[in-house]
Amino acid sequence: MKNIGLLGLGTVGSGIIEILEIRKEEIKNLTGHDIRIKKVLVRDLNKKRDIILEPDLLTTNYDEILSDEEIDIIVEVTGDLEMSYKYISDALTRRKHVVTANKAVVSKYFEKLLSLAADNNVAFLYEASVGGGIPVLKPLKEALFLNEITEVQGILNGTCNYILTRMIDEGRNYEDVLRNAQELGYAEVDPTADIEGHDTLRKLRILATLAFQGQIREEDILLNGISTITSYDIDYIKNMNSTVKLIGEAKIVEDGFTAVVQPTIIKNSNYFANVNMAYNSVAFKGNNVGELKFYGAGAGKLPTANAVLSDVLDIIMGTYRKGNPLGQRVLKNLNSKIRGKYYLRVSDCNAEIIRTLKRIAEITMSVGSITTIITEEVQLTGLGRLIDDLNIGNDRYFFARILNY
Amino acid sequence: MKNIGLLGLGTVGSGIIEILEIRKEEIKNLTGHDIRIKKVLVRDLNKKRDIILEPDLLTTNYDEILSDEEIDIIVEVTGDLEMSYKYISDALTRRKHVVTANKAVVSKYFEKLLSLAADNNVAFLYEASVGGGIPVLKPLKEALFLNEITEVQGILNGTCNYILTRMIDEGRNYEDVLRNAQELGYAEVDPTADIEGHDTLRKLRILATLAFQGQIREEDILLNGISTITSYDIDYIKNMNSTVKLIGEAKIVEDGFTAVVQPTIIKNSNYFANVNMAYNSVAFKGNNVGELKFYGAGAGKLPTANAVLSDVLDIIMGTYRKGNPLGQRVLKNLNSKIRGKYYLRVSDCNAEIIRTLKRIAEITMSVGSITTIITEEVQLTGLGRLIDDLNIGNDRYFFARILNY
Repeated sequence: MKNIGLLGLGTVGSGIIEILEIRKEEIKNLTGHDIRIKKVLVRDLNKKRDIILEPDLLTTNYDEILSDEEIDIIVEVTGDLEMSYKYISDALTRRKHVVTANKAVVSKYFEKLLSLAADNNVAFLYEASVGGGIPVLKPLKEALFLNEITEVQGILNGTCNYILTRMIDEGRNYEDVLRNAQELGYAEVDPTADIEGHDTLRKLRILATLAFQGQIREEDILLNGISTITSYDIDYIKNMNSTVKLIGEAKIVEDGFTAVVQPTIIKNSNYFANVNMAYNSVAFKGNNVGELKFYGAGAGKLPTANAVLSDVLDIIMGTYRKGNPLGQRVLKNLNSKIRGKYYLRVSDCNAEIIRTLKRIAEITMSVGSITTIITEEVQLTGLGRLIDDLNIGNDRYFFARILNY
Repeated sequence: MKNIGLLGLGTVGSGIIEILEIRKEEIKNLTGHDIRIKKVLVRDLNKKRDIILEPDLLTTNYDEILSDEEIDIIVEVTGDLEMSYKYISDALTRRKHVVTANKAVVSKYFEKLLSLAADNNVAFLYEASVGGGIPVLKPLKEALFLNEITEVQGILNGTCNYILTRMIDEGRNYEDVLRNAQELGYAEVDPTADIEGHDTLRKLRILATLAFQGQIREEDILLNGISTITSYDIDYIKNMNSTVKLIGEAKIVEDGFTAVVQPTIIKNSNYFANVNMAYNSVAFKGNNVGELKFYGAGAGKLPTANAVLSDVLDIIMGTYRKGNPLGQRVLKNLNSKIRGKYYLRVSDCNAEIIRTLKRIAEITMSVGSITTIITEEVQLTGLGRLIDDLNIGNDRYFFARILNY
């Protein structure tokens, strides 16, 4: 019998209980163990829930779980950032294994939590924190033994991808699609973390830090979200036989790295063009294995629960690769070297702005007060400074990298 | 120190030695072990090789390796079918772990070898046998714990995919591209196993048997290769805004399964349409994790060697899931239920054939002596019988499933 302390009984927590119930027999046969949720930490004992549990399973007191010697695996799916950090670090200190789906806490405290786990000789696993149901962190960690990883990229946020896909496919405007996504539960009531790219950035931080074996912090990553995209941009992009995706990408360059999250215009024939709706895809390149790409559900109750439970099974069967997966490389931030062609649309444009933009434009198009340029190859940080200098308000422009393949 | 007996010093064998040499330090740091190739079985001691090894490493006598108590892992990359079966089963019987890249031997003796490994309490791993460098069998086996897998499909043969991609992209004819592929080493001198689909079929047999937890034998799979495809077919398919891929696909249907390898016409917007050249992709569907897709190099020295060594590391670190991964489900062969729309081109057609074909055609087009039909939805086995009954010689027709998404 293996006992789990479950923290959080929201969507993912319910999914975990559901899968454990349905797969009871197979899990017993394959692992030789019964897995039991022994305690569930919730905020409110009396909240109405879809899932029926014996009342004495629920507790609002974490100490009850921490001090239970029979519980040696903690599954953290609260979604809360600072509380979850405390829960996880307390559990690791008490030599309990921890599995989490919480990308915010993994991103913010990655090095700390992994070194705490290593010090206490227990596992800290977080497969569900990147790419939802896609098994990608495990193969990435395994690839590190045999490869220098030189590049990692992906469509890492289901909400953004859902919004962009529906705008492209249906020609609907941003606000419409966002509202619809919120109604369907694909987007949060406050969608900032998704649409401004923070969620993608956290996942890229986790991927790149593992892949490059050196610390890539959140603040090391350039960020540009999708919240100002309009139907005008979508039409322009479709006329380029292209689509647009929010892509996080980090690369080894000389003795350093580049890391950026940005809307990216890609040809319809590009692999990522066919990663649509709430699906995610993660790709990385190793010098021996070559390029690998992984595709699957980026979120959702059962896919995420599946990823969490896969980590739990690895702990129970001892089949995760032990030791701290992080490396000690010191890499320079070379984001100033990021160069590319960009699509830039400015609304309520004036003659001075147009004159300045033309200096870096290969193509300029003005329709009414909207001016669009396709830049020559420019430095991304330089482009950002130019836009700042022109005092174009945040809501008046949208720009996206153009990939030519 | 972990000692390996390497069987075969061809492309993959050399790749294994190369990676072990280059990654020596990282492997030592990460696993705590030195990995040494202690003996290499070759056919000819005096053959000129690109790779320089101490001469006393080589042997032509397998018993020398088998009886070496210091060698507890055998890596089989000979490519030979019947000899490799003897090598592998002898090694397992001697309680040595075995890793192979040889899909033919895995496919033919899958159940036997896995039960021999289980009986002797050693590992038999074969990640490189399907999808080359793509880590897909391990995630598939892991997904089995938490999911019913209902579908598995893929572009599983790099040679076919290379030929079809170049025909589509460059409009060149089949013989030209095949000759070129042979010159570049992408196709064997005798390409039958690839272009007639046997290699794809073996990989599908391995995938489906794992996925469905019941034996799917080679002879349970319907097979249709690409060797009769012409530039005429390619032009027709391009005009459909589509491309063509050799796809292996198996599905759970009612109380049984369907399994087929066939050229498949897919829209350019389909995920598989962007898996090009020698790349492979494998997809499977689980009832909890949803659809997962994996993409990477389907063959090649270093990617394949990487997959083999990943298995070796799992053995050394004990991080593979123990036990026989095969299940005992008995599934009916329901291939007679496979239905779909098909593209069928017949050369040197006569009036009788055209009359018969028209009975199942939604679209008929005759150009000179070539007649092409797009069928209504038909039974695949029925279509095969019809072609047989009409006595159309094998080299006079090509047909492919049409997918509408």
